[in-house]
Amino acid sequence: MLYIIGLGLGDERDITLKGLDAIKKCSKVYIEAYTSLLSFGISTNGVSTLESLYGKPVTVADREMVEEKSDDILLEARDSDVAFLVVGDPFGATTHSDLVVRAKKLEVGVKVIHNASVMNAIGVCGLQLYRYGETVSIPFFTETWRPDSFYEKIQKNRALGLHTLCLLDIRVKEPTLESLCRGKKQYEPPRYMSINTAIEQLLEVEQIRGGSAYMEDSTCVGLARLGSEDQMVVAGSMKQLLMVDFGPPLHCLVIVGKTHPVEEEMLDFYTVAGNPDQSKE
Amino acid sequence: MLYIIGLGLGDERDITLKGLDAIKKCSKVYIEAYTSLLSFGISTNGVSTLESLYGKPVTVADREMVEEKSDDILLEARDSDVAFLVVGDPFGATTHSDLVVRAKKLEVGVKVIHNASVMNAIGVCGLQLYRYGETVSIPFFTETWRPDSFYEKIQKNRALGLHTLCLLDIRVKEPTLESLCRGKKQYEPPRYMSINTAIEQLLEVEQIRGGSAYMEDSTCVGLARLGSEDQMVVAGSMKQLLMVDFGPPLHCLVIVGKTHPVEEEMLDFYTVAGNPDQSKE
Repeated sequence: MLYIIGLGLGDERDITLKGLDAIKKCSKVYIEAYTSLLSFGISTNGVSTLESLYGKPVTVADREMVEEKSDDILLEARDSDVAFLVVGDPFGATTHSDLVVRAKKLEVGVKVIHNASVMNAIGVCGLQLYRYGETVSIPFFTETWRPDSFYEKIQKNRALGLHTLCLLDIRVKEPTLESLCRGKKQYEPPRYMSINTAIEQLLEVEQIRGGSAYMEDSTCVGLARLGSEDQMVVAGSMKQLLMVDFGPPLHCLVIVGKTHPVEEEMLDFYTVAGNPDQSKE
Repeated sequence: MLYIIGLGLGDERDITLKGLDAIKKCSKVYIEAYTSLLSFGISTNGVSTLESLYGKPVTVADREMVEEKSDDILLEARDSDVAFLVVGDPFGATTHSDLVVRAKKLEVGVKVIHNASVMNAIGVCGLQLYRYGETVSIPFFTETWRPDSFYEKIQKNRALGLHTLCLLDIRVKEPTLESLCRGKKQYEPPRYMSINTAIEQLLEVEQIRGGSAYMEDSTCVGLARLGSEDQMVVAGSMKQLLMVDFGPPLHCLVIVGKTHPVEEEMLDFYTVAGNPDQSKE
């Protein structure tokens, strides 16, 4: 049996009792370092906090392992209980659907143990979850690669009065261009997009496209380290949020649509002006 | 401090370690019976499973208590640690935003401990969470009250190729009409909308509106008891799902938009035809 277990968002104690029960009976425990372990203060070298909580060794499955060696993991899971740990909920990212599809093809049993993910924890800012439209991803722009397909999506959400969750780019274990040319793998240092960079890119695209999907004055909510002890939630215009230091990653951004009175009351608690300590919790 | 703690979707062991830590230090523990405790096999009379796990008494806060006496709970939380337990994640429903707003006004500290909710656990069917449009609610139709504002929302989502999560009506502790007239409270037996009823109502509205938002042949996914040991996931046309017995509540329904290949592969595992045991897990 393959147990795909969500770890939630904050730290090692955000696992559920059910998740921990499953780990206890597994002969092998993998943790994906593919998307982000950052919120757990875990580098790919140090998973000792988890190991001491679980009472057993944990193998970090980095990007290459998940992509190239998942069948090995699945074959182990055919004969014994294997845990595959995922930050957030198992179905926040495409990768884990892939893993389930491959497991089903190999006739390996799969059990999913859910947890919080950014997709529901953003509810904390007070905007109702059912009033969100399509979620967009904001990728790091480079000199030559500036994809802006998020623009139409935001525009459509805003036309419908819906909120837009913007997931911000994470670059972990990206091979350097040089290493790709030489065939020897070396990696760029990890990069996590800040709310400030995201807003800069959004405004750049608005300036080029000119479709008034949003403006400098559009209300947004910036959320940093969602679900952690030191999470930070600040509401304000794009222009205002550009000036806020949200601190360490992970960051995400919500572009606010039409609001109801209860939503507005909640946002008031998080506004830049009304909240000198910027809602550090 | 008021701790608002998500219990997740399945049973008492879906609470997080952090949630349990918080309960252990609280002098008073409330659980909201407002939306649904059904998935926990808990009636409003029996919370003993939770009490024995927590090692302390748990007070059921029914609809009236949450709406009428929340300030009493908040005042307790000003002087001591109080836990308010919620099935799923604290921000799945409007009520809890209200509670936070009132807490902030009374200057009561609030800490939120997240968990899985239907809003992210539906990812289990293989449709990508970021490809969902606005979520809709399907209310029980009566002879005289047949609100269908969900129709335009579904139509807009489908025009954009997005999936639509339909949350199905729950009627718990509804006062009887008779009791309202007499001023003495008596309650209707609880009702939970089935996937079958939801589809019947959806098709009735399509027939009246005629906007081709969806049809009998539109692909949907029915999910029952999401996150429980005996959860059931079946994909098929509306017409096909009408014939499926999904068993006890809670049910929800996804109307599928445009799909990507990985999404299709996952749905294949859950289709009525391809899955004689109807994906009982």
